[in-house]
Amino acid sequence: DGGLFAACKGWILDVWAFAKEDKNRVIFSLKVGFAVLLVSLLILFQAPYEVFGTNIIWSILTVAIMFEYTVGATFNRGFNRALGSLLAGIFAVAIAQAALCSGRVAEPYIIGISIFFIGAVTSFMKLWPSLVPYEYGFRVILFTFCLIVVSGYRMGNPVRTAMERLYSIAIGGFVAVLVNVLIFPIWAGEQLHKELVNHFDSVADSLEECVRKYLEDDGSDHPEFSKTVMDEFPDEPAYRKCRSTLNSSAKLETLANSAKWEPPHGRFRHFFYPWSEYVKVGAVLRYCAYEVMALHGVLHSEIQAPYNLRIAFQSEISEASNQAAELVRSLGKDINNMKHTLQTSLLKRLHASTERLQRAIDMHSYLLTTSNHEATAEYSSKPLPKIAHTLSSTLSNDLSNSLADLNKNGDLGGQEPTLTQNSSFLLPVPAAESYHESMKKQQRRLYSWPSREVDDFELDGGLEMDFLPRMRALESTAALSLATFTSLLIEFVARLDHLVEAVDELAKMAKFKHY
Amino acid sequence: DGGLFAACKGWILDVWAFAKEDKNRVIFSLKVGFAVLLVSLLILFQAPYEVFGTNIIWSILTVAIMFEYTVGATFNRGFNRALGSLLAGIFAVAIAQAALCSGRVAEPYIIGISIFFIGAVTSFMKLWPSLVPYEYGFRVILFTFCLIVVSGYRMGNPVRTAMERLYSIAIGGFVAVLVNVLIFPIWAGEQLHKELVNHFDSVADSLEECVRKYLEDDGSDHPEFSKTVMDEFPDEPAYRKCRSTLNSSAKLETLANSAKWEPPHGRFRHFFYPWSEYVKVGAVLRYCAYEVMALHGVLHSEIQAPYNLRIAFQSEISEASNQAAELVRSLGKDINNMKHTLQTSLLKRLHASTERLQRAIDMHSYLLTTSNHEATAEYSSKPLPKIAHTLSSTLSNDLSNSLADLNKNGDLGGQEPTLTQNSSFLLPVPAAESYHESMKKQQRRLYSWPSREVDDFELDGGLEMDFLPRMRALESTAALSLATFTSLLIEFVARLDHLVEAVDELAKMAKFKHY
Repeated sequence: DGGLFAACKGWILDVWAFAKEDKNRVIFSLKVGFAVLLVSLLILFQAPYEVFGTNIIWSILTVAIMFEYTVGATFNRGFNRALGSLLAGIFAVAIAQAALCSGRVAEPYIIGISIFFIGAVTSFMKLWPSLVPYEYGFRVILFTFCLIVVSGYRMGNPVRTAMERLYSIAIGGFVAVLVNVLIFPIWAGEQLHKELVNHFDSVADSLEECVRKYLEDDGSDHPEFSKTVMDEFPDEPAYRKCRSTLNSSAKLETLANSAKWEPPHGRFRHFFYPWSEYVKVGAVLRYCAYEVMALHGVLHSEIQAPYNLRIAFQSEISEASNQAAELVRSLGKDINNMKHTLQTSLLKRLHASTERLQRAIDMHSYLLTTSNHEATAEYSSKPLPKIAHTLSSTLSNDLSNSLADLNKNGDLGGQEPTLTQNSSFLLPVPAAESYHESMKKQQRRLYSWPSREVDDFELDGGLEMDFLPRMRALESTAALSLATFTSLLIEFVARLDHLVEAVDELAKMAKFKHY
Repeated sequence: DGGLFAACKGWILDVWAFAKEDKNRVIFSLKVGFAVLLVSLLILFQAPYEVFGTNIIWSILTVAIMFEYTVGATFNRGFNRALGSLLAGIFAVAIAQAALCSGRVAEPYIIGISIFFIGAVTSFMKLWPSLVPYEYGFRVILFTFCLIVVSGYRMGNPVRTAMERLYSIAIGGFVAVLVNVLIFPIWAGEQLHKELVNHFDSVADSLEECVRKYLEDDGSDHPEFSKTVMDEFPDEPAYRKCRSTLNSSAKLETLANSAKWEPPHGRFRHFFYPWSEYVKVGAVLRYCAYEVMALHGVLHSEIQAPYNLRIAFQSEISEASNQAAELVRSLGKDINNMKHTLQTSLLKRLHASTERLQRAIDMHSYLLTTSNHEATAEYSSKPLPKIAHTLSSTLSNDLSNSLADLNKNGDLGGQEPTLTQNSSFLLPVPAAESYHESMKKQQRRLYSWPSREVDDFELDGGLEMDFLPRMRALESTAALSLATFTSLLIEFVARLDHLVEAVDELAKMAKFKHY
């Protein structure tokens, strides 16, 4: 008994939370109640009942069927109902007159054949792809036609039946539209607007979460990838939100379809507001989200870059991803505030940091072994210049020159040349640095490889001969996983260009304010 | 006038093609016509009209509203309509009796308040996520309740009104269900089955197409990536099909929801057939398709691996992808034929060739420069062993030993050591070859690197000093693009494990025949 009470209480709390989450739900419910009450009054009061008669029950049916959550959907359904009823009325009157003229015997045959014909044709038409949104209208044509023709046949005077039905439907539609628009209207356009902005935020959140987890993970708590790819990932709320946006194309389209029916309202003050552009922006955003899904796949794949390697690129990766997320969020914010800011500075910064990431990774296929060894700080104390001198005495002149150049540069860099190289790798290269400058740095690194390799061989001795390459092969796999992650990140950034374009297009067409 | 005739002709041909594409469309249309004709006959003929009276028009309304494309959807709608009407009838009779007992003055107030209350409560309930599929049922409750209560108020005897309405609705529902089930039934289950199998095929096709284009593309006709990511890619029909499957989750769910209402039929002969498993398999398949989308992204990204590099891995990539596509297709075929074959042999082969691809790529981060140079056949004539000897005379003992070892291995490999290395890289390593064996080969390659590097330096001279690293940096970028492509391919294969599992689960639950 106490359990039942507790269950009841829990249930009531659930309902309360549900209502509180979105107050529009309560408003919508009360509006429906009010609308059906209004039309019912036409029958309950004596005066209107004497005017309209029992036909007014069609108004109730109309309100119950037509009343939708948003204004646009109600208009859309009302349009379907009105046009459908009108067409059905015209057909019905025409057929009924023809049947009447053809005599008592032929009449039922004509009516029967016409019903079959209308049923088949409307059903076929509503399957036609471009007519699918008007499915309800075809249904209305069918049943209104049947009702008028049949009751006309039994009660005579089909024109009167048709007219009575049409005006009672009109009353019902009128009440439904008035209540829906005048009392706390819920606009499909507003919902679409909010929904799209939410998608921007969830893609940005998901990207950040994904990258954060990638750089956080120290490999200690890396469980086997869940048995199903469909896992809930309870510790990744943003990912789950992002995943749900991937399946939301239908919702955006439905909302846009409804929004097209709405008059200018609230913040959307001009006619022919480009609601279909919202769907397009949503689609481009979804294409960006596919890359996030792929990033998430790398994050949870079994082939994993070791922690120290990921950490080596931490600053570049997190800089690029944070700026990308920031750009996505600021695009979403712009849409939300209906502003049109040129994102050039953000975009430029993002491109610069992505290029930096790209360059860091480019060097990586050469520096993997070295940088990795240095990152683990095992070999950092080795006397690099000495070995280089030993080498240079036997190699050709050009090479010895280049190595001398390397030494000089290394000395310029500070007292611990290896650490300098390592740290310049970790620290983001200042944006002001020219490409030539950084290419030169890269060169130095490239040249320093052979001597370093030799260095390792010399000091580690024979025992490592068999072990080292194996370790390196593993390291290279790991490096490729990292490379995949960064490539996907870079591809994500590349797609942001398209997103910026799509948002610009939307801003232009929707006449957002310039800043 | 001739133009009008031509337009008409084109339009008729379109309709004809549309009907021919899926004959079920025509069947459905004719069935709807037949069903409405059947209920109309109940009014058109004198005998049934005398029995049922004008209330029978509710049957027509019911048929028009209930008749859906598939059997399952019709059952579902029928259930909604039946239960909704029944509940509404019970509520209405109870309220009407209470109103009657409370006297002439209070009656309209009680009726009005009850209408408002029912309107608000049903509208709120249909927003509750788990009740959304029964949206139509709540609509039915609302309007049936209003109709019975209101007309009961005006015509008296609400119980009789309710009963008459209920049995005419029952007649309509009965006719709709009978016609839908007995005459060329269109089963939602069958549609779902076909749809899922199609998805398997389109994912497999899309993967193959993507990989083929990646390996085909010789860089000459590489246009800038389309202005919008949403481009139609007219030369990639499979990609477009695959993309549309990504948005089809709603369709699969609707079909599964309908299929649950269907009795055992055709090939699906046992009760409680696991239709929801189809949705799960579809979801896992969609996760595989995300990887195909990412592959497609790499295919069209601006950072592109050069043709000769891609070609170097051609056999491994195309072997792995063809086997992956084959596995997907054979899973689809199994579902189609309702067979349960263990895909172990295919899966083993796929894993072996994926491992081969993986290994080839692993070695790559070391061999990139060399293999690439060799692939372009510019440096293949260089006397490698000689240089090694020059080097070994000055370096420490350990290193000279290892290089001697390298020479010996190189000599064992054939008369043209560089070409051998290159070709062993291009040809797939036989699956029988042990891991140890291939690791040894890899070692040899790793060790040959330093001397090769030195070789380049010595022979190319000072002019190349500035140019070479830059070229190498570019090459490394390219290599990373290739690495990303293969990583995504490998991730796709990893997800196929989950797909195989999901299909196994489906096969078990649906009791597919074992082979």
